[in-house]
Amino acid sequence: MKGRKIAIVGGVAGGASAAARLRRLDENAHIIIFERGGYISYANCGLPYYVGGVIKDRRDLLVQTPERMSKRFNIDIRLNSEVEDIDLDKKELIVLNTVTGERYRESFDKLILAPGAEPARPPIPGIDKANVFTVRDIPRIYALKDYIDQAKPESAVVIGGGFIGLEMVENLRLNGIKVSLVEMLNQVMPPLDYEMAAYLHKHLKEHSVELYLGDGVVSFDRDEKRTIVNLKSGKQLKADMVILAVGVRPETTLAKKAGLEIGETGGIKVNQHLQTSHPDVYAIGDAIEVVDFVNRRPALIPLAGPANKQGRIAANHICGIEDTYKATQGTAIIKVFDMVAAYTGNNEKVLKKYRIPYLKSYTHSGSHASYYPGATSMAIKLLFSPEDGKILGAQIVGYEGVDKRIDVLATAIRAGMTVYDLQELELAYAPPFSSAKDPVNMAGYVASNILQGLHPVIYWDELDSLDPHDTVLLDVRTEAECKKRGCIPGSINIPLDSLRERINELPTDKTIVIYCEVGLRGYIAARILMQRGFSRVFNLSGGYSTYSIAKYGLE
Amino acid sequence: MKGRKIAIVGGVAGGASAAARLRRLDENAHIIIFERGGYISYANCGLPYYVGGVIKDRRDLLVQTPERMSKRFNIDIRLNSEVEDIDLDKKELIVLNTVTGERYRESFDKLILAPGAEPARPPIPGIDKANVFTVRDIPRIYALKDYIDQAKPESAVVIGGGFIGLEMVENLRLNGIKVSLVEMLNQVMPPLDYEMAAYLHKHLKEHSVELYLGDGVVSFDRDEKRTIVNLKSGKQLKADMVILAVGVRPETTLAKKAGLEIGETGGIKVNQHLQTSHPDVYAIGDAIEVVDFVNRRPALIPLAGPANKQGRIAANHICGIEDTYKATQGTAIIKVFDMVAAYTGNNEKVLKKYRIPYLKSYTHSGSHASYYPGATSMAIKLLFSPEDGKILGAQIVGYEGVDKRIDVLATAIRAGMTVYDLQELELAYAPPFSSAKDPVNMAGYVASNILQGLHPVIYWDELDSLDPHDTVLLDVRTEAECKKRGCIPGSINIPLDSLRERINELPTDKTIVIYCEVGLRGYIAARILMQRGFSRVFNLSGGYSTYSIAKYGLE
Repeated sequence: MKGRKIAIVGGVAGGASAAARLRRLDENAHIIIFERGGYISYANCGLPYYVGGVIKDRRDLLVQTPERMSKRFNIDIRLNSEVEDIDLDKKELIVLNTVTGERYRESFDKLILAPGAEPARPPIPGIDKANVFTVRDIPRIYALKDYIDQAKPESAVVIGGGFIGLEMVENLRLNGIKVSLVEMLNQVMPPLDYEMAAYLHKHLKEHSVELYLGDGVVSFDRDEKRTIVNLKSGKQLKADMVILAVGVRPETTLAKKAGLEIGETGGIKVNQHLQTSHPDVYAIGDAIEVVDFVNRRPALIPLAGPANKQGRIAANHICGIEDTYKATQGTAIIKVFDMVAAYTGNNEKVLKKYRIPYLKSYTHSGSHASYYPGATSMAIKLLFSPEDGKILGAQIVGYEGVDKRIDVLATAIRAGMTVYDLQELELAYAPPFSSAKDPVNMAGYVASNILQGLHPVIYWDELDSLDPHDTVLLDVRTEAECKKRGCIPGSINIPLDSLRERINELPTDKTIVIYCEVGLRGYIAARILMQRGFSRVFNLSGGYSTYSIAKYGLE
Repeated sequence: MKGRKIAIVGGVAGGASAAARLRRLDENAHIIIFERGGYISYANCGLPYYVGGVIKDRRDLLVQTPERMSKRFNIDIRLNSEVEDIDLDKKELIVLNTVTGERYRESFDKLILAPGAEPARPPIPGIDKANVFTVRDIPRIYALKDYIDQAKPESAVVIGGGFIGLEMVENLRLNGIKVSLVEMLNQVMPPLDYEMAAYLHKHLKEHSVELYLGDGVVSFDRDEKRTIVNLKSGKQLKADMVILAVGVRPETTLAKKAGLEIGETGGIKVNQHLQTSHPDVYAIGDAIEVVDFVNRRPALIPLAGPANKQGRIAANHICGIEDTYKATQGTAIIKVFDMVAAYTGNNEKVLKKYRIPYLKSYTHSGSHASYYPGATSMAIKLLFSPEDGKILGAQIVGYEGVDKRIDVLATAIRAGMTVYDLQELELAYAPPFSSAKDPVNMAGYVASNILQGLHPVIYWDELDSLDPHDTVLLDVRTEAECKKRGCIPGSINIPLDSLRERINELPTDKTIVIYCEVGLRGYIAARILMQRGFSRVFNLSGGYSTYSIAKYGLE
């Protein structure tokens, strides 16, 4: 029995997943992978760690070799094969073998496009003079690593503070290279809100990374030895090498040429079965436009997890299993030296952009029971609907256990849970792993209190707009803490445990803005005052911790 | 304004939580905690770690002192105060001050019972001759630790292989003490199913713990120096000390005496607001009977997380917030030396007991991307409904990241998710934290394939009952793996990558039972055979990994 022919363009994450699933479902199909490069199914997300020597053997990056994959799954893998065009009428591909120069047509019954995304390379004047590297595929990462090993550069400028930029910063530092990071926005990791990214700013500086935020590259130049990076601010950086990591854009050249529909975001448009505007052509991975799970708008969210899942779903649908890809939440995580930052769902910037109403809470919790050694603190920002408490997004920055809590919150968002549901989650507790009230439960408690009006809060960025004549800023930490940590200008100090005795020192006719270190004592103080005749009481959400990192994180 | 009087019996987990929440909601209430012992709100779950010296300072066990709690929350804390009886008609407590011997009545408007559970102390003959310790509260743990520090015992017998027993095993070993563990069942950690507990058996033996499973203590004796433990099997163990950790039972003495209703499981009966049979009396924590979240039957599930949550819910309800406690899932986790075991929902034994139909899957996944250093393997057992794939329970044993996956699965169960939903979960991926397809996604994929009939499986405990004349046992691992790891007796070896070429070696008229190391290659092999004319094909779920630990874990 001769099976149908299924062609896949691109053999990395989604493409390789699709091929393997197709074979498991259809032993008779003729499955062809066309891969432009010389490698398939490599460890895309591991590339920066090879540069840093964390991954020592370059062979470890090759998750699957063409030989092994071909053998195991009986797949016709064609490397160095650029698909130049699709003849949709005839259902044929025009393929160029980039080694032999041969050009040929290959027919297909079903086609899956998995071309990925390409690093943006803006036409900055002088870029050809610069010693520029991008992080994208095996040949480019080998070239970068070889350069470091042989030329032993002393300094680097990383342009772009997203995932790849930050991972490269860390891995260059592991090579002992001095690193400057240039980012156009006023923060690194744009999917985080500013005050959460601020923890990373501090941490990067602690690891001797020079930060140039809110600044961009206007041109490159060279002296005898080094690349000169000229910034918009007028600053000039000199370095042996430059890493360009200003983001990626969907690789849609082929799809456009073939006349397939492109979405408003610039990604290939697909339906819920991942079919393009031509029903026999599917598209998956970083090249497609997805639906944002929270705000339901079209979005570009290039992530490995969704790409792999989409590969499987397209394969299922081709084989008659009624599978759908619903939406992308944008759950992601990054390790930056010792610190971990993660997020899921929408951030405040996105919610504002789409005018989606939201409330928010900041909490700081220990990664596990305080009395068991090694607990560290994590900051959690929760965004939720003022209507019903539905969770819209979460961001966490800390160390141990950040990955666990973001995954719990990602699952909660996927399930459509509210902040009330977070209170009830029954998570695994033993002293080495958590507390009887997990950080996620605590975030749920605080958010629920805010939602129910039990806990009126104010945020770090609202303090400046308060009328100082009508406001008392009350610090309820101990005197020792105020001295050690600093305090918000203009505040008075009454430690929580003295508040009941000293309550008469406070005017009942003014707004009382309370803060403590993380928000917990402030909340208790607010409850005392609210029940003792103070009508305008607010607690600073996240306390001095959140305030100080947001205000002074860059100092 | 004079507030109402709320009495709380028991000041540890749930009791202390309730008191703090009550105060935040009602600044005017007179809140009294009656604590039989001399300590409140101590680190119950940390006690074993103090014995092992992991928690070095005994003061660290005292999460909250009576002085600090009293000051901060304005609570009337009465230590060494045994509530002997409740006069429900008059709404008064009869209290004995165990230090002064004074006995008095104290009225209440609302009462919360949080007496906890007591370690069982079976009347084993000779128990008074034995040097027996139990792990329960601060005085008893101080006594235990002092004994170890001063008498420097060389050997110990731990009786009971549950949480406390295993944590004590580890912490006694940390003191260099030789440990024997005696457990009546044929496995440690009864909430795990046997084959999952088998990993712990192996690990305990690797840490030089002598295991006596399926054996019980019939009597104690003494020689000049040591305690003699006589086992049912006739074996005799001699040791300097004995830890009795055979479980806890709800402390219901007071509730019974007062005539409050006791449930069929022996715990105090409460409604969803945690009210006992008297509407002004609430009960929370280890002393109450809860509803099992999965099977909806009454159950005793003594865990710190639920106790703390219940404290808050009772306080809310007393203060007019319509809060309910829905059910307990039984999510828990334990560290045993380097290994971590965790579970949530129902296990197979419980599902069988209640005749709840289920399917199951075993998967083995890396804790993070294989190419990033330090990944370890975890075994996941998933139990789900054959009807709709609803998740009924999960058990995980491994090292890094077990806590994360059990929490994700606990959240999924709480949300009523199915195994199909697990496939879609968008969890945070970067190489140090996970894989593009997280272990939870993988478990979802495998379970979904089983449910959809794409992947007929057989289980480790079914192999023995196969008719050898009608069955071919096919090992699809490489020859090297079979040699290194061993294989199932009677199996033939055709490595997966040669299966298509050598398919004629297999008879189409027999049942083919396939296995590989963890189940993945076996699944691929099964898909090949099923599509090539073999009608009775089964893949061994969890592969040789699950089979060998279950069969040979104790060898």
